[in-house]
Amino acid sequence: MKIPQRIAGVLSPVVTPFGANLAPDAARFVRHCKWLLANGCSGLAVFGTNSEANSMSVGEKLELLEALLAGGVPAAALMPGTGHCALTDSVAMTRRAVELGCGGVLMLPPFYYKGVSDEGLYRNFAEVIERVGDKRLRLYLYHIPPVSQVPITLALIERLLKKYPGIVAGAKDSSGDWSNTKAMLDAFAKAGFDVFAGSEVFLLDNMRHGGKGCITATGNVNPGPIDQVYRNWLAPNADQLQAGITATRNIVQKVPMIPALKAIIAHFGNDPQWRTVRPPLVELERAQEQGLIDALRAAGFGMPGLAA
Amino acid sequence: MKIPQRIAGVLSPVVTPFGANLAPDAARFVRHCKWLLANGCSGLAVFGTNSEANSMSVGEKLELLEALLAGGVPAAALMPGTGHCALTDSVAMTRRAVELGCGGVLMLPPFYYKGVSDEGLYRNFAEVIERVGDKRLRLYLYHIPPVSQVPITLALIERLLKKYPGIVAGAKDSSGDWSNTKAMLDAFAKAGFDVFAGSEVFLLDNMRHGGKGCITATGNVNPGPIDQVYRNWLAPNADQLQAGITATRNIVQKVPMIPALKAIIAHFGNDPQWRTVRPPLVELERAQEQGLIDALRAAGFGMPGLAA
Repeated sequence: MKIPQRIAGVLSPVVTPFGANLAPDAARFVRHCKWLLANGCSGLAVFGTNSEANSMSVGEKLELLEALLAGGVPAAALMPGTGHCALTDSVAMTRRAVELGCGGVLMLPPFYYKGVSDEGLYRNFAEVIERVGDKRLRLYLYHIPPVSQVPITLALIERLLKKYPGIVAGAKDSSGDWSNTKAMLDAFAKAGFDVFAGSEVFLLDNMRHGGKGCITATGNVNPGPIDQVYRNWLAPNADQLQAGITATRNIVQKVPMIPALKAIIAHFGNDPQWRTVRPPLVELERAQEQGLIDALRAAGFGMPGLAA
Repeated sequence: MKIPQRIAGVLSPVVTPFGANLAPDAARFVRHCKWLLANGCSGLAVFGTNSEANSMSVGEKLELLEALLAGGVPAAALMPGTGHCALTDSVAMTRRAVELGCGGVLMLPPFYYKGVSDEGLYRNFAEVIERVGDKRLRLYLYHIPPVSQVPITLALIERLLKKYPGIVAGAKDSSGDWSNTKAMLDAFAKAGFDVFAGSEVFLLDNMRHGGKGCITATGNVNPGPIDQVYRNWLAPNADQLQAGITATRNIVQKVPMIPALKAIIAHFGNDPQWRTVRPPLVELERAQEQGLIDALRAAGFGMPGLAA
């Protein structure tokens, strides 16, 4: 069996469009995914935190995944989020992602119980790997303690990597703590563990220490410039390029991220339906959105080719 | 349509037995539920935190619910947990619970995103109520910030109660903070909002301030004595009875609660399979279990009629 190349570069945790009835909108989703791949993303971390993935059922997510493939998005570029609180949900979704040929899966730990042991988390990931039982599985661990409240420790990574080399393929570090990302890189990058920064703010640092790119919220709206940093991290002007994408990030994250991303797509794509979020999230207030758009325009931001 | 009487008294968030393959074990589940109803519980809050509910898929939980009814457990005594991160999961499970005639549902807020607004949480609960669209729905709000990290505020209760009187029926307060439970009682008990303490430690206090009982982990193993406090809260020896159940609780909660409950049932029911937990939880270590059982025996604890 041919083992495909690993995903690297800029990945977007793709925001999920909802209709007026709050149902996922597959057509808009496919369109946005294609725009992202045509505009700088090497991969799509669909069903991430910014995708409101946990606000959707497993069935809804699998329908969207199949719609992407039917719509011509290459499976090898996909790294769907497949980690759930329920072991059986994680297994079902991971198994299907592998069957469909996805380049990888990005897996949250079970996040309901807090203060759980590394032993319990190890058993969770090991059980998923064993039940899926497919050498094509490329599992990326999703460390996002500010949201999940359940960390993926270095000791847990070490144990999983030792037991499942090749299958345990890397991590997304959304701790917001560069020292943690660096510790992951120092400990595991040479063993073929691919570390993605959880924000483009750390992209250049990550590349300089052996990382493989970033999986970042703002990849949904600013993929081209972020990809430029990825492609030119060895260039003399890399720090300048990095400063540019960091500045854009800082504008966006002044307001709640997910509704902000949707408001930006709605505005620059001239498609108001994109503003819809599922509870428990709420859309931006009008003044918040106006301030965000004004600041982005003042900074010369654009989304080329987005508007139909 | 006849509106049945509201659930009151001692409810157990029933622990879920798993087989060696980690699949839910319906036969053991039905047996334990019947033992609980025969030994002091007025109701069963199946699929709660102590049930490892979020470690199971919606499909697995619905199968267990149907097995209970097929096994002769009265629907009116059931208050299944139906709150999920995904709106569509919460709707599907709540709808089915109402169709099956459950006495109520105990609903977590969506718990993945932290720091969400009351507006977003209001929309979540309102959307579930509207989509289920059934006057028989009795919704109990589940406030358990130490685990969910997403609180149910008094302001949120007030807004929901005003919009959906009769449907929004009460709450379980697992904050561990009596002042919060008292504030709920003071604000809403007279409006027909039924407050259950989240631990029997607060049962007598709750009854004295207009509460309706408790929904408590240790109800799984000590339902009779807890029910005695519920039934005799006006009796001269109520404080003495309360001291007894608090002492038992204090023994149990010295070790992790869910594996402790399962170890107690395994031991006193002479049924080792009960020790099994799903990841990310782990069973008690042997010494922990031995210490727990010794302490319970020394305190005269027993589970009459549990062993087959």
